[in-house]
Amino acid sequence: MTTAWNSAEVKPLSDYTLSQLDGWWRAANYLSVGQIYLLDNPLLRTPLARDDVKPRLLGHWGTTPGLNFLYAHLNRAIKERSQSTIYVTGPGHGGPGLVANAYLDGTYSETYSDVTADAEGLRRLFRQFSFPGGIPSHVAPETPGSIHEGGELGYALSHAYGAAFDNPDLLVAAVVGDGEAETGPLATSWHSNKFVNRTQDGVVLPILHLNGYKIANPTVLDRIPKEELRSLMVGYGHEPYFFEATEDTDLAQAHRDFAELLDTVLNRIAELKALPDDHVERVRWPMIVFRTPKGWTGPAYIDGKKTTGSWRAHQVPLANARDTPEHLKVLADWLASYRADELFDADGKLDPTIAELAPTGDLRMSANPHTNGGQLMKDLRLPDFRDYAVDVPAPGATIAESTRVLGKWLTDVVRLNPDNFRIFGPDETASNRLQAVYDATGKQWNAEYVGPEVDEHLVRAGRVMEMLSEHQCQGWLEGYLLTGRHGLFNCYEAFIHIIDSMFNQHAKWLKVTNHIPWRRPIASLNYLLSSHVWRQDHNGFSHQDPGFIDHVVNKRAEVVRVYLPPDANTLLSTYDHCLRSRQYVNVVVAGKQPSPNFLTMEEAIAHCTRGLGIWEWAGSEVLGEEPDVVVATCGDVPTLEGLAAVDLLRKNVPDLKIRFVNVVDLMRLQDEKEHPHGLSDREFDMLFTRDKPVIFAYHGYPWLIHRLTYRRANNENLHVRGYKEEGTTTTPFDMVMLNDLDRYHLVIDVIDRVPSLQSSYATLRQQMVDKRLEARQYTRTHGDDIPEVRDWVWPAAHGATFGAVGATEATGGDNE
Amino acid sequence: MTTAWNSAEVKPLSDYTLSQLDGWWRAANYLSVGQIYLLDNPLLRTPLARDDVKPRLLGHWGTTPGLNFLYAHLNRAIKERSQSTIYVTGPGHGGPGLVANAYLDGTYSETYSDVTADAEGLRRLFRQFSFPGGIPSHVAPETPGSIHEGGELGYALSHAYGAAFDNPDLLVAAVVGDGEAETGPLATSWHSNKFVNRTQDGVVLPILHLNGYKIANPTVLDRIPKEELRSLMVGYGHEPYFFEATEDTDLAQAHRDFAELLDTVLNRIAELKALPDDHVERVRWPMIVFRTPKGWTGPAYIDGKKTTGSWRAHQVPLANARDTPEHLKVLADWLASYRADELFDADGKLDPTIAELAPTGDLRMSANPHTNGGQLMKDLRLPDFRDYAVDVPAPGATIAESTRVLGKWLTDVVRLNPDNFRIFGPDETASNRLQAVYDATGKQWNAEYVGPEVDEHLVRAGRVMEMLSEHQCQGWLEGYLLTGRHGLFNCYEAFIHIIDSMFNQHAKWLKVTNHIPWRRPIASLNYLLSSHVWRQDHNGFSHQDPGFIDHVVNKRAEVVRVYLPPDANTLLSTYDHCLRSRQYVNVVVAGKQPSPNFLTMEEAIAHCTRGLGIWEWAGSEVLGEEPDVVVATCGDVPTLEGLAAVDLLRKNVPDLKIRFVNVVDLMRLQDEKEHPHGLSDREFDMLFTRDKPVIFAYHGYPWLIHRLTYRRANNENLHVRGYKEEGTTTTPFDMVMLNDLDRYHLVIDVIDRVPSLQSSYATLRQQMVDKRLEARQYTRTHGDDIPEVRDWVWPAAHGATFGAVGATEATGGDNE
Repeated sequence: MTTAWNSAEVKPLSDYTLSQLDGWWRAANYLSVGQIYLLDNPLLRTPLARDDVKPRLLGHWGTTPGLNFLYAHLNRAIKERSQSTIYVTGPGHGGPGLVANAYLDGTYSETYSDVTADAEGLRRLFRQFSFPGGIPSHVAPETPGSIHEGGELGYALSHAYGAAFDNPDLLVAAVVGDGEAETGPLATSWHSNKFVNRTQDGVVLPILHLNGYKIANPTVLDRIPKEELRSLMVGYGHEPYFFEATEDTDLAQAHRDFAELLDTVLNRIAELKALPDDHVERVRWPMIVFRTPKGWTGPAYIDGKKTTGSWRAHQVPLANARDTPEHLKVLADWLASYRADELFDADGKLDPTIAELAPTGDLRMSANPHTNGGQLMKDLRLPDFRDYAVDVPAPGATIAESTRVLGKWLTDVVRLNPDNFRIFGPDETASNRLQAVYDATGKQWNAEYVGPEVDEHLVRAGRVMEMLSEHQCQGWLEGYLLTGRHGLFNCYEAFIHIIDSMFNQHAKWLKVTNHIPWRRPIASLNYLLSSHVWRQDHNGFSHQDPGFIDHVVNKRAEVVRVYLPPDANTLLSTYDHCLRSRQYVNVVVAGKQPSPNFLTMEEAIAHCTRGLGIWEWAGSEVLGEEPDVVVATCGDVPTLEGLAAVDLLRKNVPDLKIRFVNVVDLMRLQDEKEHPHGLSDREFDMLFTRDKPVIFAYHGYPWLIHRLTYRRANNENLHVRGYKEEGTTTTPFDMVMLNDLDRYHLVIDVIDRVPSLQSSYATLRQQMVDKRLEARQYTRTHGDDIPEVRDWVWPAAHGATFGAVGATEATGGDNE
Repeated sequence: MTTAWNSAEVKPLSDYTLSQLDGWWRAANYLSVGQIYLLDNPLLRTPLARDDVKPRLLGHWGTTPGLNFLYAHLNRAIKERSQSTIYVTGPGHGGPGLVANAYLDGTYSETYSDVTADAEGLRRLFRQFSFPGGIPSHVAPETPGSIHEGGELGYALSHAYGAAFDNPDLLVAAVVGDGEAETGPLATSWHSNKFVNRTQDGVVLPILHLNGYKIANPTVLDRIPKEELRSLMVGYGHEPYFFEATEDTDLAQAHRDFAELLDTVLNRIAELKALPDDHVERVRWPMIVFRTPKGWTGPAYIDGKKTTGSWRAHQVPLANARDTPEHLKVLADWLASYRADELFDADGKLDPTIAELAPTGDLRMSANPHTNGGQLMKDLRLPDFRDYAVDVPAPGATIAESTRVLGKWLTDVVRLNPDNFRIFGPDETASNRLQAVYDATGKQWNAEYVGPEVDEHLVRAGRVMEMLSEHQCQGWLEGYLLTGRHGLFNCYEAFIHIIDSMFNQHAKWLKVTNHIPWRRPIASLNYLLSSHVWRQDHNGFSHQDPGFIDHVVNKRAEVVRVYLPPDANTLLSTYDHCLRSRQYVNVVVAGKQPSPNFLTMEEAIAHCTRGLGIWEWAGSEVLGEEPDVVVATCGDVPTLEGLAAVDLLRKNVPDLKIRFVNVVDLMRLQDEKEHPHGLSDREFDMLFTRDKPVIFAYHGYPWLIHRLTYRRANNENLHVRGYKEEGTTTTPFDMVMLNDLDRYHLVIDVIDRVPSLQSSYATLRQQMVDKRLEARQYTRTHGDDIPEVRDWVWPAAHGATFGAVGATEATGGDNE
């Protein structure tokens, strides 16, 4: 017997196995109901009393018995076939079910030693559920065997496929709730089957759990004709298998039918997996439509209203179990219907013949190591990024497209890590100038091919995953990371907002797992946001939005990092750091357009290690004296404008002592008490002074800088320019002008803020005003930026005036 | 002939009509290419020269000829049938096409009088496209006939159905790009057909534009077998009709085939529309799969690489038209292929026989009044919200569920506006306690019914739209508003982030239309966020996120408003205001749990009109003296905790002069220069003092308050408590404790910040610390909050000490 994809004879269930399945299911259902309702008296050794019931009933019953049924049957099949399998629970509301199954197969007690396999353990198991100081009511990071939080719906299949990529021997049983199936992300994620590779990747078995109802409504997919649903699944590229049980179905028959169906499906998968390697065409993977009554085996009617088989079974069907004798009686009868005394012995231990249904060790779905991916994670083999440095003989003396340079390094990252690193993006990897990676790999595509004239870089198995769905890119990557691999997501900056809510949920997962000792650290979720706000002059206003950073920094400081490298070498250094990091979300914003390089690789490393610092060669301060003004920049375009402004100032106001500060690691601006990367007040004041004007040119919404620095001594003198939602289809320089971030306006800002300049430099100020008008008019006439701006380069003459970066004391901290 | 849904005989095209169609298509294609490439020489009266070509080539050709083809054919059909039709362009990249067609049918020149129907007008038309000071390259608010911006993809069908609701005579031709079709929101929006009503609503005709390629990849739906695609569309509930043209297809034949197919489809729609009224079952509406080569009629090969019929045609196929004679020649030949001299006379005027193809007046798709919804909008008939007030004999003396109270008023809003007001929500209208509306209407549901036991409140035609897709709710509502109607979207607070990016795009649309004189104001997009962060103690951490407010306030102040009414009467007053407003996005956060009422309706109106103000009855300040401390609150739960803290302080520190400020309209905190609702510094200082400690209990992330007030004189003394991403499954009071927003912690904050208390009230401080511990322990033992907190009410005794709200001078401003 090999390790995966074994076939088994499809034969009727033996009575013994049937009784095991039935026993397991009853036990799991009993434990689920117990978790939702019981505070004590877990084995009902005394008649159920009011005080045994929790004072606040919080949980979800409706989907749970179906999930338990599937878990029991998968147990049987896994054991028979030794098939490594994980269970992704789209209906995360079934939290009690997943906990119950993990308890039954022993994983729970191994993970949480106080929840023992006896009566006292059962009491704890019940009590902790959805109880203060206990565990969430949904499938959560705390649930062994889970890589999929049950909160926001829609990502079950994306996560499942992410887990399957590069795990050729893994079966991912992915239960999709029929409520969830109405969400957009889920509706497109069925198409993931065109991206999975039959030999390189594992198999996802989608199980559409058609239990018919949401909180208060029927579900769409349950209320279309069966043939229409079949068409839909065939249209999605699957071979559907239907299982149907109603409230009237004989339960033994249900077990027999489903066992046969599951064996048929798994044999079909084995058959497809066993096709010869030269069978490269996409196969139609099976999926199961699993139609069962909502709240199956629960009370049929409560207070005369249909409950099982209706939306009324969604949450807690007996809201007043503690308050009315009638409801208490219904609950007692319901619990009794599972005949717990047949399932658990006097000590509360599960009957060994039932326990035998489950596989053992790592084959238990709740213990499968893939669900605690940090356990399996291998460090990436990273090529030395310094070898990919662009040459910078002097600041601004050479030009590069930063992301294109990064792409060359990524090419070798791909080469060195052929089975645990992928790049995700919605049709934009080349647009974001990472196309060098196609020297080493291609875009994994298992839909149809038409020919080499157009199918450029498409391959059956590759490291780049492109589908025009940010939700899919994010969901796939999350699933890939959660099962112990590495990757990045490249995206247009504006449209990364599409996955704002998914980022939220992943950040929450990371925060929680930081405090769960048995969860091992996973690789960070790395974003590369290119085609950013300042270079969407051609696509216009709808493509201009730098607000993802604002969204990200609302999450816990311990899990979020934001970097804005100003040039190619700093981008290389930053990304090397990101790919080495663990348990973070790293947001990196970097340009793809030709733009000057300012730092040598050695300088870039020093600068990125500090996270921010003075560029002495750019400023005109005098060693040992306070500057008159600080010009600070963050982001590639603001840095260019800031330097051009300093150039103008140095030429026109030679006595002005300017300090130039650049920020790569945005979180350095926060207080050290707020963020692990934060500067102390002393460090901050050393850089930004306590009382001199600071003109800060920032990539995004300006108020973010104020929000990060409002407690700093010099906050009152901080004057921030950034994107203020003024944009349209125009030229790059017109974009910065529209938002007052341009070099001329920065000069005006300096003049207006430095008292000594206000009177004496009125002429220069007026020149700047005129320059802006001239630039605007030229643009409107010629459709391009004025040559003076287009051709501007940092004058070599400035470079020698002060010294090289890194010559002064580091401002403290490192970039971890 | 009636006004809508006329049939027409399906017969072969006459040569005359064929030549009109062909002429129109060639003209539209010529104008599209002209817009992308030409700066001048629009009619090519002299040979194309380098300087005729734009210096920066920005635009998208690929999808455009297909869109033009459809537009031409729809013109013919509309004219023949007098069928009011609008055109929703999912592939917004086809901007030049939509502009071209609007120009050809005369709408463009009527809208923009400088773009005349002559050679000079053509020159302007070409030049302005994707040019500084001109128009965007995508379909945009500036484009006549558009309700659908071409930027972020995925919402074409949702918008189309939103437009069709309550417009029984309207046909919405909705072109779905095959790139867009890969997005999640689009993938689920096909299911909209289960929600549309055959007689009450219009008809959406989805046209899947299968041109095969995205930016750099094939599309999924183009690369599955035709039968699989047919299954998919049948599975989505449609009757698909296929049209296919390749690069080899004879163009005349293509016109003949498509004309016949379109007539067949429109007749089928007419047939379905003509079914008797008692035919209530869902019908299978037709849809068209329109498969054509990408960049159809463009250069087949450029530089030896396949262009037409490949992703290379996506954007600007001749990047170097200005720089190489070879490319210039290709462009010249391409333009010449449309034989413009046959289409336009010497003055640049369109041949009248071609012009005749289009319908006239409002039947022109670019001039259809539904696409400028403000023109058609009727004001809502609003019942007097004061009649729905809850009785508040004294502050805190009665209890209500705010959203339930609002629901009663909404019930009558529904009754009074039976054809232009809808409520949208993802399965949560009852969960958010608005279920009173079911007394007046039901949930519109046109999938299958099974029986009254479970199909509660489901109706074939109703005012409540529930699908478990926030994307659909948002997209439908946007389409409904943009075509001149009214509505609201109720949602769990945490999951509204799912539509962050859609909000962005709608806010951008509103901002731009504010500056387009011919666009008439539309009703505001109203959110009701209930089930908010503080009352997701049962669902846990994944359901706790108040960050949508932060996201919203990044958009232009002129279009965003945020309200946090603290009780039922203030919610009524706020929502009445929101439903009357125009061109805004109104975010209203309000609780659904039983909670005390503080203001009578009269007081509520005064308070909401101010937007914020002192609650004199709550504080203990002395008239004419500065307070010792300001306790400010914003949001229902923070207000409760703030009042409970003040209660404790008044009992324990009777001499302390406390001012109590409540904020309803969050934007009042901003500077008057930043937001139209902003307070002047003088007003702000009058309320919050210039130097006294302010303890601010806020609903969301605390730093937002700092970001809104960082320039205020008293910023340094502002101490904000709010949600700091600490949450889990616990009790309501434990949630506020976890985030230090609880009454006990607020008392501690006051003691720590008021110098005179720091030494003398150490005992009280310690009591508060002990109280927190006690509360935590009680919760962990009993699974519920301590009775002291649960049973707390604002003491009537305090009420009489100072006077009623509204007794002092209004602080200025109104809430508009």
